[in-house]
Formats: sequence, structure tokens, C-alpha cells
Amino acid sequence: MTVTTEQEPMAKATITTPADRDFRIERIFNAPRERVWQAMTDPELVAEWWGRGNKLMIERLEVKRGGHWRFVEHGPEGVHGFEGRFREVTPPERVVQTFEWDGMPAYVIINTTTLEDLGDGRTRLVTTSLFHTTEERDGFLQSGVERGMNESYAALDRVLAKMG
Amino acid sequence: MTVTTEQEPMAKATITTPADRDFRIERIFNAPRERVWQAMTDPELVAEWWGRGNKLMIERLEVKRGGHWRFVEHGPEGVHGFEGRFREVTPPERVVQTFEWDGMPAYVIINTTTLEDLGDGRTRLVTTSLFHTTEERDGFLQSGVERGMNESYAALDRVLAKMG
Repeated sequence: MTVTTEQEPMAKATITTPADRDFRIERIFNAPRERVWQAMTDPELVAEWWGRGNKLMIERLEVKRGGHWRFVEHGPEGVHGFEGRFREVTPPERVVQTFEWDGMPAYVIINTTTLEDLGDGRTRLVTTSLFHTTEERDGFLQSGVERGMNESYAALDRVLAKMG
Repeated sequence: MTVTTEQEPMAKATITTPADRDFRIERIFNAPRERVWQAMTDPELVAEWWGRGNKLMIERLEVKRGGHWRFVEHGPEGVHGFEGRFREVTPPERVVQTFEWDGMPAYVIINTTTLEDLGDGRTRLVTTSLFHTTEERDGFLQSGVERGMNESYAALDRVLAKMG
């Protein structure tokens, strides 16, 4: 399955399902790798884009091996908590962390994100999300997460442009 | 693979690997189900057996859907933290929760435990542990966890006898 969403000619998010319990997102950002890393790890910057325009409380963001993170998004549809823990942090290129939504507690996704320096001032982000079961993966993909992800990345585009 | 460890005629712990990413433990306790449930969920009682004789700090034990737990064991080999979250809590028969050791942060096991009332004052505990990968399952089984588990269950036997 391949779902491609056009954002603008340069920035497309591509979601694929390479195996039976994972999915893979690829997205190019018009900013150097160090800037993308900073926007993904600095709490004040994360608060500007992760919630897609909704108010986001960064309760914890300990970007190091074993560190915890917890965000609470206050949107028109209600309050949603998200949390997890860092398995691996290698600035500015790779982070492995768990992801859990309060609405489905103890259903844990392993997100592996790599940032590739494209050498022309742009950065390719690739995230692979691994689930415990195929059913959890399929349920997640059908929950409208793709739209939310694209909204977050569009907001991240704006934050990166402002930082430049 | 089947590994059987004799404790005493009545109480054997059996570990099997039903599929490629899980293992299953079965153990009979000489106590009624409600008592076993209490010993597994009351912080003061858990502190008496979970650490196998080592000092155990119960930092959190919120036995409800979405609740968190965190234990810190102070043993001769050092200090080890363990934590997780509850997916499902159905007293006195079933609990589903995540399990994570600080030494391997963000490697998450899903433990499903059922307590079966055997009708003769005894209780059968069955725990199935699901891992994200086969390698994680195999590494866990080779880490000496079986001995630790049997020590915990033997300590639980003693707590249950004292409660009776």
C-alpha cells in the first residue's frame, strides 16, 4: 500500500507498509539537518508544530537514552495525552522512541526516525513505526493519523522557515 | 522449548514458547484467587515478594486502565528500575500491562496474566509475554529471568501462606 499526499511540489509525505506490523513515512523538509533536529527536540519549538495548531503542553521531553516524554494536546475535540521513552538518541541523525496514546494505554509503538542530510540544504526524514500486532498497525492507520501527521509536518515546515 | 523447574510437588513453574515472539509461564499457587490477586496488586504485599528478598521501592502502582507502575529493586548487584502501564484490569482474574527494564529502555513487553480459580483453594496463574521481536524474546529468556521469576514466585508462596 502506498499513499502519497501532495503538500507542495517539494514536500510530499509518503506512507508505505513494508512488512506486516509496521509502516514507514518519508518526508523532505526544506531546511538543513541540524535545524530539523533542533525543531524536533527543543520543547519550545516542538510546542509550535507537534499539536498542529492546537495548544500543546510539553510535560516531559528528556531527549536522551532512557528519558521520558509526555505531551498533552488541547484541541477542539478534547484533551489527548501522548507519552513514551527514548531507546536511542544520536544527534542529529537518529532517534528511537516509544509512542503511546492515553486513549489506548499500553499499546506501544516503536518509532525509529532518521534524518538524512541531502547536501542541498534539505533533509529527508524517514520514520518507521513498529507495532506488536498487525491489527494495531491497521487500526492506527485507519484512525486518521495520516491527516494529523501531514498537518504536523506542514506546521513544522513553517517553524523551520521561521528559524532560517 | 519447555523448561520445567521443580519447586515442590505442587508448585512447578513451566515456561513454554508458543509462538515466535512470546513466552508463556504457568504456575499454581496454594491460595484462593482473591488472595493471589490482592498479593499482586497491594503495594505493601508486592514489596514483600516481587524483589525476591531484595529491598523494593514501589514508586507507583496504579492498578487501573491507563495507570502507571514503577518499582526500584535495590539488590547486591545494584539498583534496577522497572516500569510500565496497565492496558486492562479485571479483578480478580485478568490484567494486561507493559513491562520495561531501565537497563533496556523502550524495549516493551506486553504481559497478559490470568488467574484461574481451581475450585480446591488453589489458583493457576498463566502469564503470556509478547515482545516486538523474536530477538528481544530470546535475549530476555537467556538473561536469567527464569531464575528470578521462580525466586519471586517462591517469595509469593510465602506471602500467600502468611496471609492465610
